[in-house]
Amino acid sequence: MQGNVIVGQSGGPTSVINSSLVGVYKTAKDRGVKKVYGMRHGIEGFLNEQYVDLEDYIQSDLDIELLKRTPSSFLGTCRYKLPDFEEDEEVYWRLFNILHKMDIKYFFYIGGNDSMDTIKKLSNYAESINSDIRFMGVPKTIDNDLAATDHTPGYGSAAKYIASAMKEIIRDAKTYPTDSITVVEIMGRNAGWLTAAAALSRAEDCTGPDLIYLPEVEFDYDKFLKKILEIKKYQTTAVVAVSEGIKTADGLYVSEANKKSVYVDSFGHKQLGGTALYLADFLGEQTGIKSRGIVFSTLQRCASHIVSRRDITEAYTVGADAVQAALNGDTGKMVTLERISNTPYQIKTGLYDVNLIANVEKCVPLEWITDDGTYVSHEFNEYASPLIIGELSPFMVDGLPRHLFIDK
Amino acid sequence: MQGNVIVGQSGGPTSVINSSLVGVYKTAKDRGVKKVYGMRHGIEGFLNEQYVDLEDYIQSDLDIELLKRTPSSFLGTCRYKLPDFEEDEEVYWRLFNILHKMDIKYFFYIGGNDSMDTIKKLSNYAESINSDIRFMGVPKTIDNDLAATDHTPGYGSAAKYIASAMKEIIRDAKTYPTDSITVVEIMGRNAGWLTAAAALSRAEDCTGPDLIYLPEVEFDYDKFLKKILEIKKYQTTAVVAVSEGIKTADGLYVSEANKKSVYVDSFGHKQLGGTALYLADFLGEQTGIKSRGIVFSTLQRCASHIVSRRDITEAYTVGADAVQAALNGDTGKMVTLERISNTPYQIKTGLYDVNLIANVEKCVPLEWITDDGTYVSHEFNEYASPLIIGELSPFMVDGLPRHLFIDK
Repeated sequence: MQGNVIVGQSGGPTSVINSSLVGVYKTAKDRGVKKVYGMRHGIEGFLNEQYVDLEDYIQSDLDIELLKRTPSSFLGTCRYKLPDFEEDEEVYWRLFNILHKMDIKYFFYIGGNDSMDTIKKLSNYAESINSDIRFMGVPKTIDNDLAATDHTPGYGSAAKYIASAMKEIIRDAKTYPTDSITVVEIMGRNAGWLTAAAALSRAEDCTGPDLIYLPEVEFDYDKFLKKILEIKKYQTTAVVAVSEGIKTADGLYVSEANKKSVYVDSFGHKQLGGTALYLADFLGEQTGIKSRGIVFSTLQRCASHIVSRRDITEAYTVGADAVQAALNGDTGKMVTLERISNTPYQIKTGLYDVNLIANVEKCVPLEWITDDGTYVSHEFNEYASPLIIGELSPFMVDGLPRHLFIDK
Repeated sequence: MQGNVIVGQSGGPTSVINSSLVGVYKTAKDRGVKKVYGMRHGIEGFLNEQYVDLEDYIQSDLDIELLKRTPSSFLGTCRYKLPDFEEDEEVYWRLFNILHKMDIKYFFYIGGNDSMDTIKKLSNYAESINSDIRFMGVPKTIDNDLAATDHTPGYGSAAKYIASAMKEIIRDAKTYPTDSITVVEIMGRNAGWLTAAAALSRAEDCTGPDLIYLPEVEFDYDKFLKKILEIKKYQTTAVVAVSEGIKTADGLYVSEANKKSVYVDSFGHKQLGGTALYLADFLGEQTGIKSRGIVFSTLQRCASHIVSRRDITEAYTVGADAVQAALNGDTGKMVTLERISNTPYQIKTGLYDVNLIANVEKCVPLEWITDDGTYVSHEFNEYASPLIIGELSPFMVDGLPRHLFIDK
């Protein structure tokens, strides 16, 4: 096979992003690619010629298995936005210069919406200069907000963590005979997929959260308080799941109401947080009931000790299929997952033009949210339940999960 | 065997408190006790004659195994402080009246310092009225602050969760090329055992947190800031573990500085929280670096999906041994764990007079804390490492850990 491979990881980490990396690495090697390089810290590090030869780190089948079980981006990540090449071509010259020097013919970028924007720009630029380097996107995001794919690798494991932790939190909260309210904050800026996953905890042995608030629905303090008071009439404990991204009618994030300043990243996304604590304070003041805020924070995206095996497998597959497609001549595309059926769960992969998918956020369909906007319907459960199935036990060393790492 | 058994669970839940319940139940049944009752919500519910016949819920070996894997107090818990019987005897009359009615001869209470206070008062009262009912304490607390025992069941699993989650958080934080500070808040009002467990994450594949602050050491903002700035000279990311109970020289909890009001429970303990967020805000303001607070909250005491098998086994053993001791005539005692050696790890159980142990908090020895008060020494690791060894896989149903529950 002529030419080498470079692969990068970008955006927020997940528990299974390294399984996609393994999928790319192993498939490329199996198909006879000589060198598979890994960008350090995505395109940002690569522009400074920071990369590794993955063979130096993946030396055995045990390393492969260990890497699958390692959370967060093994290669390091970045949040770097490429300029449009019509406006600033210099960065593209630098990049393609490095690619030529390393004899790269295949470029893979594992990430979410912002990473697909990078693939779009690079493949369009390559076309404009008649380069034969192929650029492929490998979907990854716990947020599950990528269009064109049934779901994104990373979501299933985050959902499994959220539902499991929610069960444990509910068990903990309900063991006391005293009145209490617990508000659990879950990630998801504009899409409620992760928060909705809290509903999966509802089963024969668990009530599930009493209320679920997604960013897809306008948040109203008065209605919220009324709902809580209703619940408190017939039970001592109330447990609520809220998205960090819920907004009131005026378009303000609930978390903003509470913050002196809001950090904005290089893509212009506001960094949220503080929603649960603010709502717990609000309820405490309004009801006089002891109220606690719990925030899953980064744990929900890096808890590889409780991954979904199905998610790990699919993450591997989209990496592997991106390589197959690139070797077959495709470029400027993202690998997608297409669901054939729920019961039994069946899935196939596809390819989608990145020009059509970049920077469109897929939200939870409003039909999957109850009329009063305080829970998700059975359609959501049918969609999400298959994604959390199966386990991949961590390799435990001295009582703790072992990870593969780059020592620098 | 004459007379029945009652067992209760009290105080904060743990991941293994139900393994102690199983230890009591199974040993009593094996020794021929006819009825093993469980108090609903500890002594508080029992005073309202709320109890169950455990046989109605534990009907098979599968139930036993499921109960061991169920976090939080299966029977429900309480934070109820018995009055001194010299001051208010009425509650004792009521209680002993119920005990006689149910033909209880053996009373077991699974809990921490406050629960041992209950066992002390009840056994002393029994002695004063020449009752032959035997009262035994079964140690339980994630805080590990009970005197007279090498460690407490519940601690090992919480420590395993804390070290595992810390590894994952560090992996997540360090994947970015940008400057950041993460402050992780861990439980422990006056004793730093849980926070110290963050040090267990330091291994070949993990740097561990950069700094660890225990409540045993006076906290100083200036020194803290200086340490952070030092670390930031040679690395982009700093990760700090802090106890919720750290105090400044004036005796104020750091969390208090940040709070409008502090909730105080019936034992007079202040409910803490907000330390990490406050310190993250402080560092963000002082350094201009993006700073994040992460709070493990109740997850650290109920994450039964990643328990320590050794902890589960020891929790069972202290329950079983309490029954053996009571049947052999002991009363007014708590079962203790005595360490024979670290390598290999060997332990035996003992009995200790509750009059000598109640309401004394055991802290991390100052010799186990580094001179500058920002880490723990190898002695701590030698002590704590054996306690997190081994796993007990949850029973997964539809992708989530299954629990045993009382449906009301």
